[in-house]
Amino acid sequence: MSYPITTKTVSLSKGPDPRSLIQKERDAQKFNPQAMQYFLEGSKQRGELIKSLIQQMERDPILFTDGSYYDLTKEQQRALTVVKINRVSRYLENDSIDVFTQRLSLIGVFDPQVCTRMMVNLGLFLNSIKGNGTDEQFKYWAIDKKTHQLNGMYGCFGMTELAHGSNVAGIETTATFDKASDEFIINTPHIGATKWWIGGAAHSSTHTVCYARLIVDGEDYGVKTFVVPLRDSNHDLMPGVTVGDIGAKMGRDGIDNGWIQFSSVRIPRFFMLQKFCKVSREGEVVLPPLEQLSYSALLGGRVMMVLDSYRMLARVSTIALRYAIGRRQFKGDNVDPDDEEALETQLLDYPLHQKRLFPYLAAAYVFSAGALKVEKSIEETLSVLDKAVQSNDQAAIFKSIDGMKSLFIDSGSLKSTSTWLAAEGIDQCRQACGGHGYSAYNGFGKAYNDWVVQCTWEGDNNVLAMNISKSLIKHVLTIEDKGKSVKGSSDFLNQLKEYTGSGASKVILDNGNDITDLKKFIKSLEVAIIRLSHETAKTVRKHNFDFVGAELVTLSKLNAHHYLLSEYVRRIEAHDDESLKPYLYDLGRVYAATVVLDKFAGVFLAFNVASTKAITDLAKVVIPNLCKQVRPNVVGLTDSFQMSDMMVNAAIGRYDGDIYENYFDLVKTLNPPAKHKAPYSGALEDMLNRPSLDERERFEKTLETGEILSK
Amino acid sequence: MSYPITTKTVSLSKGPDPRSLIQKERDAQKFNPQAMQYFLEGSKQRGELIKSLIQQMERDPILFTDGSYYDLTKEQQRALTVVKINRVSRYLENDSIDVFTQRLSLIGVFDPQVCTRMMVNLGLFLNSIKGNGTDEQFKYWAIDKKTHQLNGMYGCFGMTELAHGSNVAGIETTATFDKASDEFIINTPHIGATKWWIGGAAHSSTHTVCYARLIVDGEDYGVKTFVVPLRDSNHDLMPGVTVGDIGAKMGRDGIDNGWIQFSSVRIPRFFMLQKFCKVSREGEVVLPPLEQLSYSALLGGRVMMVLDSYRMLARVSTIALRYAIGRRQFKGDNVDPDDEEALETQLLDYPLHQKRLFPYLAAAYVFSAGALKVEKSIEETLSVLDKAVQSNDQAAIFKSIDGMKSLFIDSGSLKSTSTWLAAEGIDQCRQACGGHGYSAYNGFGKAYNDWVVQCTWEGDNNVLAMNISKSLIKHVLTIEDKGKSVKGSSDFLNQLKEYTGSGASKVILDNGNDITDLKKFIKSLEVAIIRLSHETAKTVRKHNFDFVGAELVTLSKLNAHHYLLSEYVRRIEAHDDESLKPYLYDLGRVYAATVVLDKFAGVFLAFNVASTKAITDLAKVVIPNLCKQVRPNVVGLTDSFQMSDMMVNAAIGRYDGDIYENYFDLVKTLNPPAKHKAPYSGALEDMLNRPSLDERERFEKTLETGEILSK
Repeated sequence: MSYPITTKTVSLSKGPDPRSLIQKERDAQKFNPQAMQYFLEGSKQRGELIKSLIQQMERDPILFTDGSYYDLTKEQQRALTVVKINRVSRYLENDSIDVFTQRLSLIGVFDPQVCTRMMVNLGLFLNSIKGNGTDEQFKYWAIDKKTHQLNGMYGCFGMTELAHGSNVAGIETTATFDKASDEFIINTPHIGATKWWIGGAAHSSTHTVCYARLIVDGEDYGVKTFVVPLRDSNHDLMPGVTVGDIGAKMGRDGIDNGWIQFSSVRIPRFFMLQKFCKVSREGEVVLPPLEQLSYSALLGGRVMMVLDSYRMLARVSTIALRYAIGRRQFKGDNVDPDDEEALETQLLDYPLHQKRLFPYLAAAYVFSAGALKVEKSIEETLSVLDKAVQSNDQAAIFKSIDGMKSLFIDSGSLKSTSTWLAAEGIDQCRQACGGHGYSAYNGFGKAYNDWVVQCTWEGDNNVLAMNISKSLIKHVLTIEDKGKSVKGSSDFLNQLKEYTGSGASKVILDNGNDITDLKKFIKSLEVAIIRLSHETAKTVRKHNFDFVGAELVTLSKLNAHHYLLSEYVRRIEAHDDESLKPYLYDLGRVYAATVVLDKFAGVFLAFNVASTKAITDLAKVVIPNLCKQVRPNVVGLTDSFQMSDMMVNAAIGRYDGDIYENYFDLVKTLNPPAKHKAPYSGALEDMLNRPSLDERERFEKTLETGEILSK
Repeated sequence: MSYPITTKTVSLSKGPDPRSLIQKERDAQKFNPQAMQYFLEGSKQRGELIKSLIQQMERDPILFTDGSYYDLTKEQQRALTVVKINRVSRYLENDSIDVFTQRLSLIGVFDPQVCTRMMVNLGLFLNSIKGNGTDEQFKYWAIDKKTHQLNGMYGCFGMTELAHGSNVAGIETTATFDKASDEFIINTPHIGATKWWIGGAAHSSTHTVCYARLIVDGEDYGVKTFVVPLRDSNHDLMPGVTVGDIGAKMGRDGIDNGWIQFSSVRIPRFFMLQKFCKVSREGEVVLPPLEQLSYSALLGGRVMMVLDSYRMLARVSTIALRYAIGRRQFKGDNVDPDDEEALETQLLDYPLHQKRLFPYLAAAYVFSAGALKVEKSIEETLSVLDKAVQSNDQAAIFKSIDGMKSLFIDSGSLKSTSTWLAAEGIDQCRQACGGHGYSAYNGFGKAYNDWVVQCTWEGDNNVLAMNISKSLIKHVLTIEDKGKSVKGSSDFLNQLKEYTGSGASKVILDNGNDITDLKKFIKSLEVAIIRLSHETAKTVRKHNFDFVGAELVTLSKLNAHHYLLSEYVRRIEAHDDESLKPYLYDLGRVYAATVVLDKFAGVFLAFNVASTKAITDLAKVVIPNLCKQVRPNVVGLTDSFQMSDMMVNAAIGRYDGDIYENYFDLVKTLNPPAKHKAPYSGALEDMLNRPSLDERERFEKTLETGEILSK
């Protein structure tokens, strides 16, 4: 047998051929990936929009991103990010809000720091003004000043401090009303109150929304919001404003996070945001009906993170799965050991490899539905609130605050659960690509480093999860003590009596079949939540909420899985393309079995939600069978994400599956093979060519010297 | 109340005082941290050695490492790493092997890439020659050439290829014997056989041990090892050798990993390593008694990783715990809500925070014992093998191969379990520091990025774990089928009959008290392993090993925990300082409860190893009580690691606990507060000052133009 010189590099014997492997599997797909993308994006219209936006940005020479992205230094990232934002601002001027939101979500996949650095201004800064300022204040700062078009002004979000993050109410920057001059004096009293982590502060922002304690006549009215100019129209820092770069981070080095200290900075009284809280010329203070209203700025971001999690999992599972199809490793037990000609087994044909990766593929699908739902909910809730505030209808305001509270619960639980799962997914997908997963050019390293801050910012995941579940427990206490029933997405808690007390031993999942019955599985999640919150409530009665932090985090996760799976099933049922449904249900089952039950088997067993048989079946039958079912459709299911090579930006994860040629080619392009020595080769050669120790010690310690010196 | 100007920065009101918090707790410690360090390091002598090595390196201006390390670019890291290696080579000339091993382990904490870049030469390259070459070959390449002193030569380890990592036997580089010239021709037949990931190849190495298929007279004798020169004494590449830099990685950018292609490179026959395998002048091939012998080069590295895991967990838990003592956040439920003067609660006083961090503190302690044991085992085993080979005692060779196999199992299971747990620990400790954990200057980002490759290299964790557990299952099959009993560290499998079949329902952990009884807990681990392997063996009989990959990984983890906990308890019992024991036992219990049982509750319940009551007690009683017990001793338990500020290298994790001043000071030193605009400010200002869209569109789309153009 002789082998021809191949087109890309010379082969003297038959090399690996991953490209044919993926093509063969792609040809065998039984469903339409385009139709699937419409399902994932929510509609044909949205699906087409997404594709056209990707095409537009892929062709834009400034926004186009490839492997060289992974070689940029911090300074290069900082500068390039601004150039890209400048470019995006031109699209922004023509995009509708919905289009722009989708555009940002896509930029968030291939260059998340560009997305974040803009969103600090367009999202956090403007939402904070919208949430806390009057309509006129919003119109002035956002529209008239063109801030919403990334023009004129650039805002940042001056909330967190060096010694205060999650506990916003504990912030220590002061805004003291000076009646004489009709001004507020903004001051950082000590190092702990230094504004910290402020995205955009180091180099970009002209203004900040400063969260500071309102002090009037020596009285502390708590944390309120003030627009404080940081830089003048010449981009020079205002007097009394000290700003610094907080420097290198684990990721997102393209964002100029900074610190700010205010030293008696004066702003006019009307720079205070006063939708709900006012200070009159005479120093009279009007307080808002409910503090929660001030934090609505964070809601939009949290919701976006569910969408981000969907897209990130779509991206990394696409890379790892394409690689697993093209990569061969060892001859598996299914290969005839006597067949010497047999090729090594494709990675993805190992059951363990399927079990490692399919959960994240399934999670991407399930999250897509949750992201769409939560996006819709927030739009509705905020528009109702806006109308109520505009018509000054107190009853309607309070009612929409109720809606916002419920959205806070759902979004907090979803934000924490989905960002954690995406972080885990990036890491697992990287590990599943072995050594090549560790190369910067295959995308996982930067993806992880950029991603994990999502688990911390805009509500630390643990803090969020605990807060959310506290409401669940309070619901349970109310039901138990007052017999009142609960409304909204937690209304299943009303079955409390049925599944606790004498009903506490009722098993929901008796065997493997029950696990794959999604309706029954959702029921089992409800019962798990009911029983765990019932048990947790007992401990709370005896001790307090601090004592049950771990249980609260578990409850928040179960709650999110319940929300997500329910919505996913609802969407499938409502969908009109029947041909896709078997594939979609299978992924839902994979999610139920692996992302939920396999991880929470201890809880399900301890609270009799699942029988021992069900858990044994899970490992021995359910997961292997589901994986077998999904395996042949993997190429189609990943192609359905419609992630272009630019979006994926991983040499081993490209559409054509030519993993080795693509990867080698990129490595060689970015690091041309050594024609010369390394610049630092001198230091190395000096070491290798150094004289012997004796010589360098001037032969002072040798035996000969010893004899001389001992005489 | 008035506040003075403080020593470091001016305070106008009382700022946070984390420094006093940690000092107060330090003063209250009840045991001697120095005595504890002797326990952790195995002896007073080793403990003192460790401290003196740290002192020596901390004072060395080249080796000294501080926060500026986190700002280095890839190119700077590459160059600095060589300068540091050059420096270390001078210590090496005077260090004994034991001292040098400890030195390396410490460098592995504060600059792991320096350690790795040296170890590719001193560890992998030389161990491979030692393991595969004759004594004379080793003496020539290692000693006479001074390679062992980082002088003259610099070797790399040419094993993995672009398309072959874990499956070493599948390597495709060829070494064809050319009888005419008495040479081997080394060749890379196609792209897939390109040597890949080779540390040191890009810029440093003069030689490689090349793993290649031995071809003689057209027959393929499998993978053997050959010394191949890459660069001449002038450090210029040899003809036929193509080398490239594989470029940016997720971490460890200070290492010049490269790729190598050989195009008909000729080496003399005597460059083949021929301890076990020989090719005569006439082309006769003598094969080794057992292939396993060739891979012993990897053993030392694996063992080192358990030690690395101990030190890494010690480091990151020290950072997170010191921060958690100094940081206050919210007023916890234990604070009187009416007390307005009350300070916020220390992070570490929240039960959830304890539960999040104590597992990694405990794991550091438990791993320290395992690292010492496995280090001793490998020394003994290899010395027995060496003696047997030297005396050419075939029986003794085969016996020591048995010992090596058992060490392969233990070390593989420990390597994978401990490196995974350390990766998880770094990540969890980072998250527990909130936003500040994401700053590069607090160490977690680089620690994680540098660390996680440990889960992949020198045996991918999943592959290792599966291989290891296959032996367990084979033991079980032997016991079941042949009634033969097992020897060595898995001898507890001989109780198989007692705990399966009619004994399958015997519960070991009945309640919370059983969990904290460490002897009983170790027993429960044995029973869990027995029952899970018994069940897995059934599936293997029906299907095959590929089918039970997930179970094999679980078994490997349980096996490692069994080994580690047993050794830890044994060490405590054998220790002579009684005053430390209560603290040590408590940490062992924390490990059992959190690292093991909490994670494997599903397995323990499903196989009746623990009762439902035990698992409920675990969450409600055992873990909270243990955490409460450990809480007051945290400062002492972390101080006992004797990690100097250089070793910790995290602004918020320093000994004095002055987290905010230290952190702010470092950030300002490395990023001096803006006196000027950013270098790229022009691009930003251009965007902010750009004319309106209408103007930039030359007013072509305005209504006025519309009227004109529509006329």
